[in-house]
Amino acid sequence: MTEPLPRRPGGSVRVRVTERRGEVVTRREDRVVTEEPLEIRIGVEGANPRRAMITMRTPGHDFELAAGWAIHDGLITASDVRRVAYCTDRELSPEEQFNVVTVTVTRMLRTPAQRAAATSACGVCGSDSIEGVFNTLSDAVARPTTIAAEVIAHIPDAMRPHQALFDHTGGIHAAALIATDGQLLLLREDVGRHNAVDKLTGAQALSRADYGGEILGTSGRIGFEIVQKAVVSHRTAVVGVGAPTSLAVRLAREAGLVLAGFTRSNRFVVYAGDERVTA
Amino acid sequence: MTEPLPRRPGGSVRVRVTERRGEVVTRREDRVVTEEPLEIRIGVEGANPRRAMITMRTPGHDFELAAGWAIHDGLITASDVRRVAYCTDRELSPEEQFNVVTVTVTRMLRTPAQRAAATSACGVCGSDSIEGVFNTLSDAVARPTTIAAEVIAHIPDAMRPHQALFDHTGGIHAAALIATDGQLLLLREDVGRHNAVDKLTGAQALSRADYGGEILGTSGRIGFEIVQKAVVSHRTAVVGVGAPTSLAVRLAREAGLVLAGFTRSNRFVVYAGDERVTA
Repeated sequence: MTEPLPRRPGGSVRVRVTERRGEVVTRREDRVVTEEPLEIRIGVEGANPRRAMITMRTPGHDFELAAGWAIHDGLITASDVRRVAYCTDRELSPEEQFNVVTVTVTRMLRTPAQRAAATSACGVCGSDSIEGVFNTLSDAVARPTTIAAEVIAHIPDAMRPHQALFDHTGGIHAAALIATDGQLLLLREDVGRHNAVDKLTGAQALSRADYGGEILGTSGRIGFEIVQKAVVSHRTAVVGVGAPTSLAVRLAREAGLVLAGFTRSNRFVVYAGDERVTA
Repeated sequence: MTEPLPRRPGGSVRVRVTERRGEVVTRREDRVVTEEPLEIRIGVEGANPRRAMITMRTPGHDFELAAGWAIHDGLITASDVRRVAYCTDRELSPEEQFNVVTVTVTRMLRTPAQRAAATSACGVCGSDSIEGVFNTLSDAVARPTTIAAEVIAHIPDAMRPHQALFDHTGGIHAAALIATDGQLLLLREDVGRHNAVDKLTGAQALSRADYGGEILGTSGRIGFEIVQKAVVSHRTAVVGVGAPTSLAVRLAREAGLVLAGFTRSNRFVVYAGDERVTA
């Protein structure tokens, strides 16, 4: 990019663009969403932290992203988090240090290596192993609260005024936690749909908030992983502007979540848990 | 899901849903896009294939997906592919066999393990290593052809009639190869944006097509990985309906690709290579 990136990148970056509208050519400045890699390291206090994963993300709320990802991935629980910090390795430049986050925990449920081994059986790709995922999640079934149809229908409208980076760039996802009375509790944006969901759970963990039972709202489509994260963090429903996938529907039904897609101001489609939606 | 999945799943699955439009409640049948895991194994002829990755994908064109992914990831080149087959391990159920694909090659540029090691340096997350990615790609610079603005503007319209699964489900991405004269050459759909791009390159490799120089069209947003795949497979431009990210713009500029976003029938925004767009 011609423009130098700032030391600690923000959520969007200015670029020179050319807009073409029929014959009309306009050269102007535009904003694009920032995408940078983040390396997440995890370690028990006193031991050397190990790299757990790398994700492309939008900088901002990095500590939440790291903690939330580890919780959703089953490596730790929210109460295990001791502290989160940017990397201070001397061999890293200041810019690089902002792309490496270390989560220090009191204990780990399993290490990244154990997690990899657990899914290395051949059957991971078959229906048996998807059953396995479902069984693992069965103790995390959502609380069977009812949700008013009006609350679901207005979630995208409630989220929209808080999507600041979307306003600037038009190219970023949002995820939000909404109370069952319709109150918006928290919203996060990220170039990656999954990252935005991780940031929500990480924010709750880092603030030691008592969580569970909220509705997870998402600006995008609803795949298996989004529902999986919602189940692990004890959400009661997933409401999206976009369409769900086959596995997302199946998991939501088995885990007892309400799943609504194609949500517009006055209309939505319920794919799971309709008996819990009240008029 | 209440409905049993077919043995070899198609691109969409029927589900019972409840549509709520204000006070009006309609129970009907809907279609959701199929999402299933795919394990990709790669091996040189005569040796045992090893698992290279697992991705959630929409079944269909699985061989293309596996070959294209390996090419884009730098593990093999198109001419290295000897054959691609579903898994026939006896311990797998017929359903599971369709979720495991093995690519047999004459040689590998590097193994998945070597690839992991190459990116395990701490600096992978800093700007230095992104430079490294750019340097690796520098010998794959696109051919500097010009592209008519009218061709770019009409790519979404050209793709739309071929997005069959989108018509059924409203929840699937499409990627297409378009000649610089505007002719649509190939279109693939997948729940994952990256998978749809992999399928295109895999299709060309498996048909031994002479490729390079096409425009890559995408129905969605344009992140770093999409541009990376376009550079590796020698595309001349990336044209998307959605917004690009900061790293996507930077890579397109350094690799000499035309990058256009927010493409509508009569309007688009050029983020890279505008000097190659002709009126």
